[in-house]
Amino acid sequence: MEKTVTVAVDAMGGDNAPEAILAGVADALAAYPQLTVKLCGLPEVVEPFAAQHERCDAVACSQVIEMDEHPAQAFKAKPDSSIVVGCKLVKDGQADAFYSAGSTGACFTAGTMVIRRLKGVARPALCTNVPCPGKTVVMCDVGANADCKPEYLVQFAKMASLYAELLGARDPKVGLLNIGEEETKGSAFAQEAHTLLKRDVPQFAGNCEGRDIVNGTCDVVVTDGFTGNVALKTIEGVGKMLFDEMKRMFMSSMKTKLAAAVLKPSFKQLKDSVDPDMFGAAPVLGLRGPLFIGHGSSSPLAVKNSLALAIRSVESDLTGKIATALANADADEPVKA
Amino acid sequence: MEKTVTVAVDAMGGDNAPEAILAGVADALAAYPQLTVKLCGLPEVVEPFAAQHERCDAVACSQVIEMDEHPAQAFKAKPDSSIVVGCKLVKDGQADAFYSAGSTGACFTAGTMVIRRLKGVARPALCTNVPCPGKTVVMCDVGANADCKPEYLVQFAKMASLYAELLGARDPKVGLLNIGEEETKGSAFAQEAHTLLKRDVPQFAGNCEGRDIVNGTCDVVVTDGFTGNVALKTIEGVGKMLFDEMKRMFMSSMKTKLAAAVLKPSFKQLKDSVDPDMFGAAPVLGLRGPLFIGHGSSSPLAVKNSLALAIRSVESDLTGKIATALANADADEPVKA
Repeated sequence: MEKTVTVAVDAMGGDNAPEAILAGVADALAAYPQLTVKLCGLPEVVEPFAAQHERCDAVACSQVIEMDEHPAQAFKAKPDSSIVVGCKLVKDGQADAFYSAGSTGACFTAGTMVIRRLKGVARPALCTNVPCPGKTVVMCDVGANADCKPEYLVQFAKMASLYAELLGARDPKVGLLNIGEEETKGSAFAQEAHTLLKRDVPQFAGNCEGRDIVNGTCDVVVTDGFTGNVALKTIEGVGKMLFDEMKRMFMSSMKTKLAAAVLKPSFKQLKDSVDPDMFGAAPVLGLRGPLFIGHGSSSPLAVKNSLALAIRSVESDLTGKIATALANADADEPVKA
Repeated sequence: MEKTVTVAVDAMGGDNAPEAILAGVADALAAYPQLTVKLCGLPEVVEPFAAQHERCDAVACSQVIEMDEHPAQAFKAKPDSSIVVGCKLVKDGQADAFYSAGSTGACFTAGTMVIRRLKGVARPALCTNVPCPGKTVVMCDVGANADCKPEYLVQFAKMASLYAELLGARDPKVGLLNIGEEETKGSAFAQEAHTLLKRDVPQFAGNCEGRDIVNGTCDVVVTDGFTGNVALKTIEGVGKMLFDEMKRMFMSSMKTKLAAAVLKPSFKQLKDSVDPDMFGAAPVLGLRGPLFIGHGSSSPLAVKNSLALAIRSVESDLTGKIATALANADADEPVKA
């Protein structure tokens, strides 16, 4: 029999909570027999659900962190919120991982303060899939660290490569997001990061540009959290703009409406491929236990996919692999936070 | 009768040079009666063309800067190249503007060294249209200044707003590209830029995010050249990826092929809207004379559109307007380069 994986789940996080979260948890419990859920949230939400589902325990919390609250302030003010309580379950060994579709900032703060960094990790980082046809590509950091030192990117590269391997990449190629292919291109920051990546990351394949993020040149795109966040949201924005425009154009006549109806399944498939809701969740890499943050608009399917990712990361010991990789790195070149 | 506008044109620049450039110049000469062209390039290219066209003078050059040469080295090594000679014509008052689809770096270097900065301009910047349905949106800087100081962005905002007005925007709204809407979001650089923009740029409307670049939230997106270049190339990459994928999907069966054929004009229109080739050219803002740099893959239509832009910028005295706006700014708060 497979070993049980216990995932703490924030029932209150996200724009469609708790309904979408509960529906996704129910689907995940049905699909993954090894999964046990510790469902964190207001008692009136989590207790009736837990009573009706096998392998689901209710963890009653008295507070909820809203999407627009200041992360650090909310973390301090709401120690009994579902996000903070979920992180505590991981810290105390009562859960193997935590998943929330709530405030990214609050989850990151709680994860860093409660689950805490692995030894040798300068900065935990947010890593996410980016749409790329027929290939799994991840980008790191996508917003947790707006200000980075070049050496952080070496760690991002190592951690994100291990995550890319979890997702199925073999010998993942790492690219540095930059504004030219040559080593001497880019900002002073990018040039220094290039030098360090070349020295310390065997999978480093050189610079990649904005257009390469989605064309499969690399398996792992490393960048500072500011640039990564801008690039990620630009991808999302261009996808939305183009599909909105197509819809508008195709609705303009009966002839185009009929033609568009034939192509609808293809459009749907492609639209899903650039829909952040479909990516599942983004892990915070570098913590002592897995933390997955879902998109605020997560659907039941996104919740289910996120829990599948959480299970895989526990079963493959992603945290242990990162700890080993970064501990070794640390021995070679000490990193000061 | 309209006043003559003399534009120096680099016949040798771009992947499709000289054929695409010459075809575009011929179209522009036919379309714009006020245009006179000084065609810079190898004598065997420019002399036969000039002999066959009214209002076109050949300016024979003995050198050509290739696309992949190091900009500063090429500028020094090739003083008789079409790019350097074109800039000299502007500097000497023999041309009102210069257009090249050659190496962006070499054009920028030559522009800065030969045409030179306007008084009060800390850093000339590259400004380009971004695709946004039904609206003209420009982004600045998109790659000329990989490392910026926050105060440069105030100048970028002022210069790009004047360019947006030239393109038809009324009271252009300026957004700072950042990773959150709130004033306190983003890197230390972005936060300081926010403070300065709020203080010094009346049209400043706050932060915008990656997804807002193409959704019309702002008329002018200001950012450092590193982030702007990544965002611009990401837009290009996502557009290409989605259209390539659609083509692949639609070719999969006879039924979808037929439906796609009906929608072809709509696809074409939309594809053009994200095609950098269609944007015309990107001006370098902040020089003592207009310099427009075209995409390397510029088609004859792109060349013609670029020359139309150059004519408009001369006729509306964009350079004079920028000089006035920045000279005033300079009086308030001296900017050190």
